[in-house]
Amino acid sequence: MPLMYRLFLLTTLLVTVAQSLMAQITKRPRDYGIRFGVLPTGPLNAITDVAGVLVGQTTLKQGQTIRTGVTAILPHAGNLFQQKSPAAIYIGNGFGKLTGYSQIDELGTLETPIILTNTLSVPTAADAVIDYTLSQKGNEQVRSVNTVVGETNDGFLNDIRGRHVTKQHVLDALQQAKNGPVEEGNVGAGTGTVCFGFKGGIGTASRKLPASLGSYTVGALVQTNFGGVLKISGVPVGVELGRYSFKENLDGSCMMIILTDAPLDARNLKRLAKRAFMGLAQTGGIASNGSGDYVIAVSTAYTIPHETASSFDEQKVLRNDNVSPLFMAAIEATEEAIINSLFAAQTLSGDQNHRVEQLPVDKVVELLKKAGQVH
Amino acid sequence: MPLMYRLFLLTTLLVTVAQSLMAQITKRPRDYGIRFGVLPTGPLNAITDVAGVLVGQTTLKQGQTIRTGVTAILPHAGNLFQQKSPAAIYIGNGFGKLTGYSQIDELGTLETPIILTNTLSVPTAADAVIDYTLSQKGNEQVRSVNTVVGETNDGFLNDIRGRHVTKQHVLDALQQAKNGPVEEGNVGAGTGTVCFGFKGGIGTASRKLPASLGSYTVGALVQTNFGGVLKISGVPVGVELGRYSFKENLDGSCMMIILTDAPLDARNLKRLAKRAFMGLAQTGGIASNGSGDYVIAVSTAYTIPHETASSFDEQKVLRNDNVSPLFMAAIEATEEAIINSLFAAQTLSGDQNHRVEQLPVDKVVELLKKAGQVH
Amino acid sequence: MPLMYRLFLLTTLLVTVAQSLMAQITKRPRDYGIRFGVLPTGPLNAITDVAGVLVGQTTLKQGQTIRTGVTAILPHAGNLFQQKSPAAIYIGNGFGKLTGYSQIDELGTLETPIILTNTLSVPTAADAVIDYTLSQKGNEQVRSVNTVVGETNDGFLNDIRGRHVTKQHVLDALQQAKNGPVEEGNVGAGTGTVCFGFKGGIGTASRKLPASLGSYTVGALVQTNFGGVLKISGVPVGVELGRYSFKENLDGSCMMIILTDAPLDARNLKRLAKRAFMGLAQTGGIASNGSGDYVIAVSTAYTIPHETASSFDEQKVLRNDNVSPLFMAAIEATEEAIINSLFAAQTLSGDQNHRVEQLPVDKVVELLKKAGQVH
Amino acid sequence: MPLMYRLFLLTTLLVTVAQSLMAQITKRPRDYGIRFGVLPTGPLNAITDVAGVLVGQTTLKQGQTIRTGVTAILPHAGNLFQQKSPAAIYIGNGFGKLTGYSQIDELGTLETPIILTNTLSVPTAADAVIDYTLSQKGNEQVRSVNTVVGETNDGFLNDIRGRHVTKQHVLDALQQAKNGPVEEGNVGAGTGTVCFGFKGGIGTASRKLPASLGSYTVGALVQTNFGGVLKISGVPVGVELGRYSFKENLDGSCMMIILTDAPLDARNLKRLAKRAFMGLAQTGGIASNGSGDYVIAVSTAYTIPHETASSFDEQKVLRNDNVSPLFMAAIEATEEAIINSLFAAQTLSGDQNHRVEQLPVDKVVELLKKAGQVH
Repeated sequence: MPLMYRLFLLTTLLVTVAQSLMAQITKRPRDYGIRFGVLPTGPLNAITDVAGVLVGQTTLKQGQTIRTGVTAILPHAGNLFQQKSPAAIYIGNGFGKLTGYSQIDELGTLETPIILTNTLSVPTAADAVIDYTLSQKGNEQVRSVNTVVGETNDGFLNDIRGRHVTKQHVLDALQQAKNGPVEEGNVGAGTGTVCFGFKGGIGTASRKLPASLGSYTVGALVQTNFGGVLKISGVPVGVELGRYSFKENLDGSCMMIILTDAPLDARNLKRLAKRAFMGLAQTGGIASNGSGDYVIAVSTAYTIPHETASSFDEQKVLRNDNVSPLFMAAIEATEEAIINSLFAAQTLSGDQNHRVEQLPVDKVVELLKKAGQVH
Repeated sequence: MPLMYRLFLLTTLLVTVAQSLMAQITKRPRDYGIRFGVLPTGPLNAITDVAGVLVGQTTLKQGQTIRTGVTAILPHAGNLFQQKSPAAIYIGNGFGKLTGYSQIDELGTLETPIILTNTLSVPTAADAVIDYTLSQKGNEQVRSVNTVVGETNDGFLNDIRGRHVTKQHVLDALQQAKNGPVEEGNVGAGTGTVCFGFKGGIGTASRKLPASLGSYTVGALVQTNFGGVLKISGVPVGVELGRYSFKENLDGSCMMIILTDAPLDARNLKRLAKRAFMGLAQTGGIASNGSGDYVIAVSTAYTIPHETASSFDEQKVLRNDNVSPLFMAAIEATEEAIINSLFAAQTLSGDQNHRVEQLPVDKVVELLKKAGQVH
Repeated sequence: MPLMYRLFLLTTLLVTVAQSLMAQITKRPRDYGIRFGVLPTGPLNAITDVAGVLVGQTTLKQGQTIRTGVTAILPHAGNLFQQKSPAAIYIGNGFGKLTGYSQIDELGTLETPIILTNTLSVPTAADAVIDYTLSQKGNEQVRSVNTVVGETNDGFLNDIRGRHVTKQHVLDALQQAKNGPVEEGNVGAGTGTVCFGFKGGIGTASRKLPASLGSYTVGALVQTNFGGVLKISGVPVGVELGRYSFKENLDGSCMMIILTDAPLDARNLKRLAKRAFMGLAQTGGIASNGSGDYVIAVSTAYTIPHETASSFDEQKVLRNDNVSPLFMAAIEATEEAIINSLFAAQTLSGDQNHRVEQLPVDKVVELLKKAGQVH
Repeated sequence: MPLMYRLFLLTTLLVTVAQSLMAQITKRPRDYGIRFGVLPTGPLNAITDVAGVLVGQTTLKQGQTIRTGVTAILPHAGNLFQQKSPAAIYIGNGFGKLTGYSQIDELGTLETPIILTNTLSVPTAADAVIDYTLSQKGNEQVRSVNTVVGETNDGFLNDIRGRHVTKQHVLDALQQAKNGPVEEGNVGAGTGTVCFGFKGGIGTASRKLPASLGSYTVGALVQTNFGGVLKISGVPVGVELGRYSFKENLDGSCMMIILTDAPLDARNLKRLAKRAFMGLAQTGGIASNGSGDYVIAVSTAYTIPHETASSFDEQKVLRNDNVSPLFMAAIEATEEAIINSLFAAQTLSGDQNHRVEQLPVDKVVELLKKAGQVH
């Protein structure tokens, strides 16, 4: 056997092992046979299944106390300020610090990337988005920028009072934003979050409607940091594992981002956003008093120019009668994205010697098998 | 054995048999061992577990085409106009005809009974509530009445265009209103409704918080007439039975009434109301475009007098920090009330020879057993 | 001079006298030289300047105690249910009984005529609108109707508890609805209302934007029944006449209807509606606690079919950047419509021997002359 | 005459001259005899008439291009995070970047000072408020801060893209905050603003209800930067001076802060906030598309502790029936505060060689004299 051939075999073997390890690490609920709802996913089962959508993340794990980061979501790769996207925000529970709500509600458009980070770093991130926008080619005359920065509070694992996120971290996330698979778990704005008492993080999922319902894609990305009584595909995992709200103190927030290529106007995007909150409910979330639960829904089907010679916007939008399948898609994608975040997140220690265990996936899969939800 | 004594024994026997039959008929999910959430129920597992709350129903099943009715809910037995109850309304999806929204939102008080009926009978019911209020002792000078009449559309089984509900039917429901057990299923405003493709109706449930969380009771009453992908205690029954939205055309609405003895002001009642909508989500409801999903939440902890010498209302209300257990109670009670309505409802034929089958309870229980949710 | 000719001359004379008397009776503020804002009016200075809009009124003045009525506004003469109009509702102060709010807010469309009447006759009017809609040709399958009935409380002059408005009165108003001049003052739903302590009523006005701003027309119709500190064209008439809130007890509500031929979607119609409330503010209205101040804004630029083969609505709507002139038009038209109602209304006695004086127009004109607002 | 005595006399003389100059500079509309509404002012006719309220301002006028600043308003001098104030926000037109909306709307409390600045400096100011709050004694465990930073866009006179406001400028304003008279015009966040085409700025006013209506004080502070058709005390000054919207391009925003010692809960504070927007309407503001018009209303009558042993808040709040006089007070105080800002502001040149003239006060007073509004 010639050397080259032996090297080839060795390489193949190594690649296989690596892939297997990767699969181990990134095995998602669907890889175990778990199903959420009835609609099919997009090819990546990620928000980036919506064509043109970009996601970038900066993860900060430094020393014993810094466990935070930034996640950036862009509806398209162009100049977002000059080509605004139709958008809406639904507030599930408003104990949060999201910027940009009122302008989106009034005008129906998003004009910047969406940034997720930790509670006390919102101003830094908003300032970075202003930097980003002012410095973009074509924006030389821009004097007003409506940043959209959401957050959850990672102060249990992260030295949040230290405000370790810098503007550069945000700009890095924006620069690295790309389509393709999205990293889940302890990354970006999900680095230090806690969900249902287990390690939370970033999660994503998507749904693709059948051709009879329009072939539209709905993608969800979530930053999970909340409590309640965890259900996975309906199985009361939280109860079975003995961890749920008011047995122990589980609280917190969830940021949910919904992208779709369906042509919706702001009014129907707000309705779509509300359905993501229903997806959170399906996981057993209770939107407790301390929750900042926000959904930002954006359509990529068309853009609205910042300036144009015309006095009119000409829109071909889905009729009210045709939006319900999208509602179901948003519910399912959000539910799955939340559970995906839990499957991907890993045990983490951090500030004040706090430590949060990851979801015991094997045990969970066992429970779902018993319940007939995994075969 | 004297005749009287024999008659007594016979009567006793008959009563026992009747009760047994009733139990048979009204066997609720809990009687099968099904559980919803983690909090205990009140003694009746009904909205009337909230002390003072009254429910009255008029059922109209006449000929082949009339399948409708009226359900009335009263927070207390006194003069509601003179002693108003703190209240709030959350709109899940606004494709409905509920009256009274804006005044409750503005003033934070309910001043009439809540009436549920069918879509096209709302004006009749509202007029009846005005009759009722104007004629009450002490209301001789009343010149403004904010009726609160909700509805779902029973036009599949009921000749809804015939508007067969009369003012007298509404007044009857009000007069018969009582505390104690609440009839579920094909009664009152639920007589002709359809839910998840099966016969829907009226359902009710309650939760009682442990002493450590305040010992408060939260009760729910629902009029179920909506679609989605039915889950019962997490088990995807709709999928298993092959009946769910977009496989077939399931649509419609849900009225949800939440009563509690917890001292909440209108702001926190609105938050509580929103959680009932999360309970609907847990059953697999999707709040489709055609849904009129409204939650009316009312506290019985105190009343606000219509007139008083004082310029002030003195309220001892729960702090924001203490409302989350009530949120969880509202979610659980609503979920269970919806499923209760499905278990109680019975196969019904009606207008246009339409026929709606009841939920196949035996099959469902079998599915839940398999899933480990019934032992 | 032949007899016929003499008769002709006599008739001509009588007609001239009658017209002169009419002019006397209906002399509007502009006829005195009073100006409101800076934009020109439409030809009739009425809501019917918006092409296609119809108004019909039923006035009930019977015996000593009945002082009420019905005003109907239709965006177009066709089947409103089958060809819905884009619409929105803004709630200035929600102490009122308007029906139909939530569905318009959710779906962005109006599917019935708008009816105004008194507070306790709302259910009767709503039921009449259902009659009207169900019986229209083409609506044979309609099983859900979202009525839009607004009101103010005329219970000071009218035996409101008697509920003297019948369904036929409402149907009459609908049947008589026409374009052309709109009667103002003590007519229709304004028959028994009181405004700033003087006799209120129905008022209307319009604005026509110059060609450079799009040539759009905005029309307002109001039912005035509220208090505050009356200003006419800025002059503090209420103070000068010694009648204003908290000097005496002035309270109540205002219904405002805005029609426009500008192509606005529901989101921008809601913004337009809010500006009508700013017009009310300009008259010195304070939207007191007891006010039911609602604005319903409707566009006639396009309709949305109830059913259609297409999944899409194609809309060419004004860009956000181009709506501000319409905002100003709505403010001005509403202000003027309110003052028009006061100039047209006449002293009236009614229930409980109550009597409300009309605005002393001569004195007011004198005050405005002194202030340089009338030349 | 001994030297010391001559020095004393000289000093006295200088002080008198200085005061006279100050009075000249700061002559307010009331000093000319102009009246707004019918209610009396507080002693200072300023927001600081509400006991305990503090205002601090940092003014940045540097070189040819920096014309901006910071205005801070504190409801009380204590630890605002630990002793939160009941609060609400009304959004007149949401084209603005206010932070903190959703949490105040959800929880009904303000937990930081209110900061006003320019549009692009909001994140810097928000970050400064976090600094301020985290470093306060007693806040060592605080990990979440809901900043409330409002803005208008001073980019016509100010090099807004340069973002010249630093965190220190914000902290300076907070440190200098005091009760007593409030400087108006080109100061703080009003340094570079433009209103009705004239130089705008900071303005303030107050109303004190008579004892029969509760003796409550309502104070307003505004940052004026908007357009429309200027009316002063009802007189159409904008028309007379030939400057108004759509004759020229006037646009922009207004931040309005309302403080009161009346015991209102968040629901009634939101209603109060809406009335400030009606005050803006009375000045001829039109809330154009580009406006960010927000009102933040806060009560000083009681505070809500961040932590406490009790599960309850005990509140003695004004009944709905008693809030209308406060509504009128908020309308009047806001109207007057806006006009005060125009009278105090002075002609200013700035960035890009832009120059904005101050309101020609003498001419305006002349117009008001003619109209009989100044005697």
